[in-house]
Amino acid sequence: MPDPVRPSLHPVAIVGAGPGDPDLLTVRAARLLGEATVVLHDRLLDPAVLSLAAPDAHLVDVGKDADGGTDQGVIDELLVLYARAGERVVRLKAGDPFLFGRGREEVAALEAAGLAWEVVPGVTSAFAAPAAVGVPVTHRGEAATVTVVTAARRDGEPAPDWRSLARLVSAGGTLVVLMGVRRRAAIAAELLAAGVAADLPIVVVERATHPGQRHVCARLDELGEVEVASPAVIVIGVVARHAVDAVRAASDAVRP
Amino acid sequence: MPDPVRPSLHPVAIVGAGPGDPDLLTVRAARLLGEATVVLHDRLLDPAVLSLAAPDAHLVDVGKDADGGTDQGVIDELLVLYARAGERVVRLKAGDPFLFGRGREEVAALEAAGLAWEVVPGVTSAFAAPAAVGVPVTHRGEAATVTVVTAARRDGEPAPDWRSLARLVSAGGTLVVLMGVRRRAAIAAELLAAGVAADLPIVVVERATHPGQRHVCARLDELGEVEVASPAVIVIGVVARHAVDAVRAASDAVRP
Repeated sequence: MPDPVRPSLHPVAIVGAGPGDPDLLTVRAARLLGEATVVLHDRLLDPAVLSLAAPDAHLVDVGKDADGGTDQGVIDELLVLYARAGERVVRLKAGDPFLFGRGREEVAALEAAGLAWEVVPGVTSAFAAPAAVGVPVTHRGEAATVTVVTAARRDGEPAPDWRSLARLVSAGGTLVVLMGVRRRAAIAAELLAAGVAADLPIVVVERATHPGQRHVCARLDELGEVEVASPAVIVIGVVARHAVDAVRAASDAVRP
Repeated sequence: MPDPVRPSLHPVAIVGAGPGDPDLLTVRAARLLGEATVVLHDRLLDPAVLSLAAPDAHLVDVGKDADGGTDQGVIDELLVLYARAGERVVRLKAGDPFLFGRGREEVAALEAAGLAWEVVPGVTSAFAAPAAVGVPVTHRGEAATVTVVTAARRDGEPAPDWRSLARLVSAGGTLVVLMGVRRRAAIAAELLAAGVAADLPIVVVERATHPGQRHVCARLDELGEVEVASPAVIVIGVVARHAVDAVRAASDAVRP
């Protein structure tokens, strides 16, 4: 429990945990996590990541996931209370805290409370998930832009401009959709209606870099029928053709 | 020098070095770098990153930067030769190897040679540079998409579709331009001509997360006149308004 008489000696760290594999935390994230006395963490994190916290650290599952989880206001409040109590607070978020992570809202709450903070960027699953199956999000002569969107919209979140996204994709750009499993049929329908080619390659990467990673290659007009469970990253664009069956198997192989 | 009789026991690792600060390498990148016998590295890397290599590792500056540097074919050849010689080869690339990193081309060369490989994603400066000045690339109710482009085009690279990019930006999306310093006036002109508001906030972050990091906040119509040197990341969009003067200073401060 926080001790209310100790002053805060450490800035609250808003830390990206990366895509899943604990080896893909940054050096700084791993160090801060090991030194933290309180860790407020997302639900989607791999247990192996949480095991990097000190044995006596107080771990609080604030349960942010595709379904919402703990109210953001409550998380902000907890951050401020623990920091004021002198704890070394790490707010550990899946992926990158400033990409669909609501990290800036938490920073705003800390600023309003006059508390020091820092942000530790993380490897985003938007790029790490395709990379984990050999797919680059840009590729010379093939894809000159990459756009990341989320299909999970909360109150006040503007809908992505699907027509402009469709134009970029048709021009060869890559589109990465986070948290899009449930709405995947609707996403494909939006893009197809806006003129994107039905046979454009896609790859859906489930549990990227976690144990049990798997992926499915398909065409855009098949996206609605792809059998996949959350969490998964949907990659739409010509670059999806670079997917290989097993990067890990390849990388672990011994060849002359 | 490579010993031509030893078989390759290790896959060639195509490794992202992150945005600059050695603390922002991934745990895996730092480990592979420390174990490598040969490191083929980009020119833009911070010396502190290269110092993580073993003292007796053979460091080869293959000089890829905004000006091109070593021919890609030569780099591919070196990767194959060192791997076949049994070296533990790390190809260390600034940022993320699969985002404007030409990493997939190097993978293709390794595949063609029958060599094992792995990719270690890195924290991209496209998101870490704005984060380093407090700017999230997406923000609830404000920016629902983020697009990354590079202004450095090589032969065969299609030009970005500026009209679609302009539409996304006008709809509240964030646009991040890498390697755009020299062409910044032309980029602003493209977007303004396509109808983006002249007073849209921008922030240009120079040497993000390196010693000497600095940034300039401005309006889109001022981008051409912003005094900035490469390497720098240009962030265009409403989210740029979140820039703070000194994240590091804030994070190092001790406050009750």
